[in-house]
Amino acid sequence: VASRRRQTNSEPSPLGAGAARNPKPEGVLGVWLVGAYGGLATTVITGAHAVAAGLADTTGLATETEPLRQLHLQPLGALRFGGHDIRETNVLDSVRELQRENGTIPVGWLERLARPLRAIDKDITTGTVINCGRAIRALRGSAPPRDRLSLRAVVRSIENDVRGFMRRHRLTRVVAVNVASTEPLLPLGPAHRSLAQLERAIDQDRRGSVRASLLYSYAFARLGLPYIQFTASNAALVPAVTELFDRAGAPYAGFDGKSGETLVKSALAPMFRHRNLRVLTWQGYNLLGDRDGVVLANARNRHAKVATKDSILSRVLGYPLHTHVAIDFVPSLKDHKTAWDFVHFEGFLGFRMAMQFTWQGCDAILAAPLVLDLIRLADFAARCGERGALAHLAPYFKHPLGCAAQDLPTQWRMLLDYAATRI
Amino acid sequence: VASRRRQTNSEPSPLGAGAARNPKPEGVLGVWLVGAYGGLATTVITGAHAVAAGLADTTGLATETEPLRQLHLQPLGALRFGGHDIRETNVLDSVRELQRENGTIPVGWLERLARPLRAIDKDITTGTVINCGRAIRALRGSAPPRDRLSLRAVVRSIENDVRGFMRRHRLTRVVAVNVASTEPLLPLGPAHRSLAQLERAIDQDRRGSVRASLLYSYAFARLGLPYIQFTASNAALVPAVTELFDRAGAPYAGFDGKSGETLVKSALAPMFRHRNLRVLTWQGYNLLGDRDGVVLANARNRHAKVATKDSILSRVLGYPLHTHVAIDFVPSLKDHKTAWDFVHFEGFLGFRMAMQFTWQGCDAILAAPLVLDLIRLADFAARCGERGALAHLAPYFKHPLGCAAQDLPTQWRMLLDYAATRI
Amino acid sequence: VASRRRQTNSEPSPLGAGAARNPKPEGVLGVWLVGAYGGLATTVITGAHAVAAGLADTTGLATETEPLRQLHLQPLGALRFGGHDIRETNVLDSVRELQRENGTIPVGWLERLARPLRAIDKDITTGTVINCGRAIRALRGSAPPRDRLSLRAVVRSIENDVRGFMRRHRLTRVVAVNVASTEPLLPLGPAHRSLAQLERAIDQDRRGSVRASLLYSYAFARLGLPYIQFTASNAALVPAVTELFDRAGAPYAGFDGKSGETLVKSALAPMFRHRNLRVLTWQGYNLLGDRDGVVLANARNRHAKVATKDSILSRVLGYPLHTHVAIDFVPSLKDHKTAWDFVHFEGFLGFRMAMQFTWQGCDAILAAPLVLDLIRLADFAARCGERGALAHLAPYFKHPLGCAAQDLPTQWRMLLDYAATRI
Amino acid sequence: VASRRRQTNSEPSPLGAGAARNPKPEGVLGVWLVGAYGGLATTVITGAHAVAAGLADTTGLATETEPLRQLHLQPLGALRFGGHDIRETNVLDSVRELQRENGTIPVGWLERLARPLRAIDKDITTGTVINCGRAIRALRGSAPPRDRLSLRAVVRSIENDVRGFMRRHRLTRVVAVNVASTEPLLPLGPAHRSLAQLERAIDQDRRGSVRASLLYSYAFARLGLPYIQFTASNAALVPAVTELFDRAGAPYAGFDGKSGETLVKSALAPMFRHRNLRVLTWQGYNLLGDRDGVVLANARNRHAKVATKDSILSRVLGYPLHTHVAIDFVPSLKDHKTAWDFVHFEGFLGFRMAMQFTWQGCDAILAAPLVLDLIRLADFAARCGERGALAHLAPYFKHPLGCAAQDLPTQWRMLLDYAATRI
Repeated sequence: VASRRRQTNSEPSPLGAGAARNPKPEGVLGVWLVGAYGGLATTVITGAHAVAAGLADTTGLATETEPLRQLHLQPLGALRFGGHDIRETNVLDSVRELQRENGTIPVGWLERLARPLRAIDKDITTGTVINCGRAIRALRGSAPPRDRLSLRAVVRSIENDVRGFMRRHRLTRVVAVNVASTEPLLPLGPAHRSLAQLERAIDQDRRGSVRASLLYSYAFARLGLPYIQFTASNAALVPAVTELFDRAGAPYAGFDGKSGETLVKSALAPMFRHRNLRVLTWQGYNLLGDRDGVVLANARNRHAKVATKDSILSRVLGYPLHTHVAIDFVPSLKDHKTAWDFVHFEGFLGFRMAMQFTWQGCDAILAAPLVLDLIRLADFAARCGERGALAHLAPYFKHPLGCAAQDLPTQWRMLLDYAATRI
Repeated sequence: VASRRRQTNSEPSPLGAGAARNPKPEGVLGVWLVGAYGGLATTVITGAHAVAAGLADTTGLATETEPLRQLHLQPLGALRFGGHDIRETNVLDSVRELQRENGTIPVGWLERLARPLRAIDKDITTGTVINCGRAIRALRGSAPPRDRLSLRAVVRSIENDVRGFMRRHRLTRVVAVNVASTEPLLPLGPAHRSLAQLERAIDQDRRGSVRASLLYSYAFARLGLPYIQFTASNAALVPAVTELFDRAGAPYAGFDGKSGETLVKSALAPMFRHRNLRVLTWQGYNLLGDRDGVVLANARNRHAKVATKDSILSRVLGYPLHTHVAIDFVPSLKDHKTAWDFVHFEGFLGFRMAMQFTWQGCDAILAAPLVLDLIRLADFAARCGERGALAHLAPYFKHPLGCAAQDLPTQWRMLLDYAATRI
Repeated sequence: VASRRRQTNSEPSPLGAGAARNPKPEGVLGVWLVGAYGGLATTVITGAHAVAAGLADTTGLATETEPLRQLHLQPLGALRFGGHDIRETNVLDSVRELQRENGTIPVGWLERLARPLRAIDKDITTGTVINCGRAIRALRGSAPPRDRLSLRAVVRSIENDVRGFMRRHRLTRVVAVNVASTEPLLPLGPAHRSLAQLERAIDQDRRGSVRASLLYSYAFARLGLPYIQFTASNAALVPAVTELFDRAGAPYAGFDGKSGETLVKSALAPMFRHRNLRVLTWQGYNLLGDRDGVVLANARNRHAKVATKDSILSRVLGYPLHTHVAIDFVPSLKDHKTAWDFVHFEGFLGFRMAMQFTWQGCDAILAAPLVLDLIRLADFAARCGERGALAHLAPYFKHPLGCAAQDLPTQWRMLLDYAATRI
Repeated sequence: VASRRRQTNSEPSPLGAGAARNPKPEGVLGVWLVGAYGGLATTVITGAHAVAAGLADTTGLATETEPLRQLHLQPLGALRFGGHDIRETNVLDSVRELQRENGTIPVGWLERLARPLRAIDKDITTGTVINCGRAIRALRGSAPPRDRLSLRAVVRSIENDVRGFMRRHRLTRVVAVNVASTEPLLPLGPAHRSLAQLERAIDQDRRGSVRASLLYSYAFARLGLPYIQFTASNAALVPAVTELFDRAGAPYAGFDGKSGETLVKSALAPMFRHRNLRVLTWQGYNLLGDRDGVVLANARNRHAKVATKDSILSRVLGYPLHTHVAIDFVPSLKDHKTAWDFVHFEGFLGFRMAMQFTWQGCDAILAAPLVLDLIRLADFAARCGERGALAHLAPYFKHPLGCAAQDLPTQWRMLLDYAATRI
């Protein structure tokens, strides 16, 4: 298992001993979302309901294309959502905010979906932002009540929330997903290198050693839930936590969903490498508003994000180059991210040429189907008895755990090869 | 052999019986260029000499990257160039024109390379433009003298030109490459479906049934030369001609080199497919000046080119979509092609988003290393005893013969898989 | 009056003898729209009501900025709309189509505005498309009944429609505006050069000599209504018709509203001229869907439009240059026009540089406030006793009548100078 | 005179009493360049010689267009250049660097111009970088010898350099121009508010109160030379220095030449204002390499530049908006600046739209003709007896002294109006 975490292009996980090859799911799958009232989670929840109700088709869901659709994945209509958030609102208001601010959810849908969406609120509890910094705390105004507890008590309370959710809905399977705002980078220390040391830090209430995302993932690992770290917060899957996931036999995947400008980078950079065109400079400018943008306007939070966005290029190309990634807060854009990339490259006889692209996408719309794909594939892996970092989910992440390849074609082939062994 | 021509993703060609696995080349390799004084051929010739002389590095040559460089390919310093052109000029003037017009070749190089470049002129003969249409003939002003001969005599004279070149330089191996201007589409008729019928048409001097590119390729096939159709002229590799190549045991590859905007398309479109993002519209606008632009300003010639550029998308994506490819003549740009592509796509919940890119590349600089790669790989294939359409060269072409795959990652993998069986 | 029509930068019209300097409007102003159910007219009508009701602010209306707002213009809340269209629908359905297709009108507004909007339908009558070509007729399916009448009877029926509208609402002032689809260019002949000859052609029912827009404008001129030709149809304001407007003492303005890419051109080109930067090439690519796009997909209709878009540059710059204007139909974009312009220019020492821009605007949203501005300013001019081509409205048009200046700053200054003489 | 410095749109300066209306220049005009070996100065010097020698035409020089060419300006062939620089090189090497790095000066020209260019070196002396910060000093490596002198001695040595230049070439007229790298912003204090206090600071050798640009401009003011501050260094024209220019009766102009992205801004922003389109966001990203880029990579120097680039928009538009200006160092681009601007705006009914542009220009090529225009116009003003800030030169500057208008059309009209009073 340890070797899984090494950054190599691991082979697709072998089938777990005694596991069914392509097992069929039974019953309802629980989905526990950290950041459950955010724009992304709201789009995930509403989208799953809309597709199940036939209001929308399955565009954006790779799991609905060949050959992935031949895997026996959880139907979108048999998901039950719950989660944590630090803001006190409700699902319907979150949907209305999306409608008003970003126009992504047709007005007419709310009538059809109001009842099931309203029912979710009772499974969403106020969470924690311990040591997450000013930018995130400001989303709420004041620290949530739970933050006054000891670290150990916070962990226990998280576990209790999930257990209550499972009990209420008689769930036997739950996938946990972190879609909360990007925390500042957690500098790794001894407390993060082994489970024993992490437990000591928690018991000693050393709050500077953790961030909220770590407390959540640690609690989920204790519960043995398959886990997906969808944002750039690095604290969630430190070695101490993945050790616990491995012991619990639960798979995990991460981190930082690759939905827009970085996705394009990972599709384009291989072209330059194949053609032996030498990229001299690749500048990427990301403009976005919205709650995400507010948090990333804070230099400490942005730094965590830029780190995963920026490292891709030299890895794909195989040599150092001049790169720069900017994430600038542009309130008027809200969630309609606009990115401009400029690529300066040298071709035959040293002649210099250029390419530039502008990407205009809605972040939540791009990311939500990835989250649904990941939930279904992580649940599938768990049902197959897989554990460790799910390397075959590399095409979904900017910083794929268990996979050194950063180019999209190679990553995509890993997922296809994985599927081929299960179908 | 016939099955090779079918548009399937053929397996990499098996090693010819008794052929060495990775045979070493011996002696000098002849390169016969149709369109030898054009900007592309001039860049190929000057570039090969410059790299061999250490004036330039190997940027742009995929054959100089791993793992292709482990194949025993012909050294760039052991190539001898000859060919046909319809304009009466010389290599040095062609180089000076490139320097003046496009600035692609450093001024200082001419001193170093003048002697070997000047020596090439005696191996370049005035060719033919029979039935190539007004736009191409206008490059010369009047029809070249050879066009007054019967078709059969033209073919014989082409063969004699190449034989003389081989005799003068004691060459045993020559690769023929067509880099001449794009001809109008040749509507295929009975005369193109079987070798017997083509020979009859030639013997009966049915000039409307051929174009210059067909006469050239037919002559090269009679000589048993490996052949590369680098431009969009469809006449060169009609079934009647490939039948003759197959009989002669010579491999061929084509057609329409993929160097710029279409290359980007074939790298980006798979990303949309993987993500199940539905592309609604893909518009591509190509602006270029130069001799190429003059010819493509003619609607009949442009049509041939647009046909290969435009078909890629629905093949990669797997569904019909609204596409448009424009090629507009912009004299001031000369060879510095500027292309703007606009992609309108639908994501999750039917939400519409957009991407656009601008590609600014010098056509000859992008294409020349592809031509050199193809010459080396076609010669290698011939030395390995391969014949038929070289499907593994698909990443080099807009309309790859012998390969249905249009996405760059799949094509590139075919080339890697091929190399892996030879190394 | 004749001199007004010459393409000179005429001085701001002097105040009509005995006219009030800045007269206050009284009562309700009628607005008669040709193309009343189109996307632009629907945005004009809904917009005027929304602004009057306080649902929207006055963004986009130059007449609401200093110093124009000091003119005593008709209040937006005191307009009454009527008109012709060839499609049989109603205002509310047209609004709903805009909401559904383009998202430009907030869903909630309909409740507030439904009553007054519904009341407009009784003042919209089925019009004529005589000799307008296939593309426009196809918007309706079959020719409208009125087209079976003689030309003279059609003219009379148009006059009766307007008279009925005025009578029903006791209107003394009506401005007529043509916002119908662009017709194919009408080649000018003797019938268009003098009023007498035009009347003869109409009396002789020479249908090939007219287009619908000409019949409308001729009827409006007979009624003495101030008139605005907002689209590129050249037939509406041929000399024979302007002669009649002049006799009737009614001012007119046109043609082809300058709302998007051409507006940017007319703002940017002066910069190149001031700096003595030599523009070599200016390519403009316009992508749009929508009913407008359908009509312009027809080469004959597009030609009329391109002619007015393309002539601007050499007039502003003062020398010939390589230009190209494409208008391509991209259904998925609907009314969200996307234009890409590429400008190649030469600077000091002959060095070449480039600028490109992408304009993404909604055509109806950009054009509707121009139409409202023009209605108010044309009515104001009429109240001031002005007649002839309203040269001071040049900044609103691609092909401004009565004004040779094509650069936006000069045109804008003409409007300011005009206002200064009235305030 | 004091009122001149206020930020009002002053009327064109009245003709000096007894001054000729459009006086003819006599003899040779000296040009003293601070930063004489930089890319801009080298392009100015080489360009003036090339145009005078008929190697290049006058593209880029507004002073060669109507009506400015009717002013009796100094002929480009009658300029003599001298100046200061901190790097020890020579004009020919600087030209060769431009050829090699940026390709802006044709290789063949050097033969023709070598003699006159070589003759300039003896008039270029090693200058000073006192208190200019690390980034600028690093261009040289170590502090220049002159920096060890007292401030007063430095000023005297500058004066002596210019006097020697005038004596050697018997010049009676010299225009001084600062084209040296942008210094960090100088925080203004009492020492900068009056000449008396500045003289005291210099006499007391308070080095923290000055920057090199201030020492230069102070010395030039003492010599009574017309002066142009072409870069963003704010120290050069503090009130204490302009007081001295006014006393000496010498005109001055500045500051920060408007050659590229900001120029486009000042041409486009008025379009949005005229149309009452509300700009929500205007982001500007400037990528450049070169010596200028190296210096601006330093946050303190960049800050000075960004300040002048950024303030334009809200002044033109008349309301606050979200703006951001980035200047990023991209070594591979050298002097070929690439800028991307994104404009997000709201139109009628609150609907949001966007425009973006990419500007690809060579900075020195764009700026050099502005410098030559300014030299000629400043000399003309001096010959007309004008003094104070030359407000009519506003179109040349990002931060025009003596002129509040920031929109290009208004600024350009000021220059035309000025010319009209002189012709």
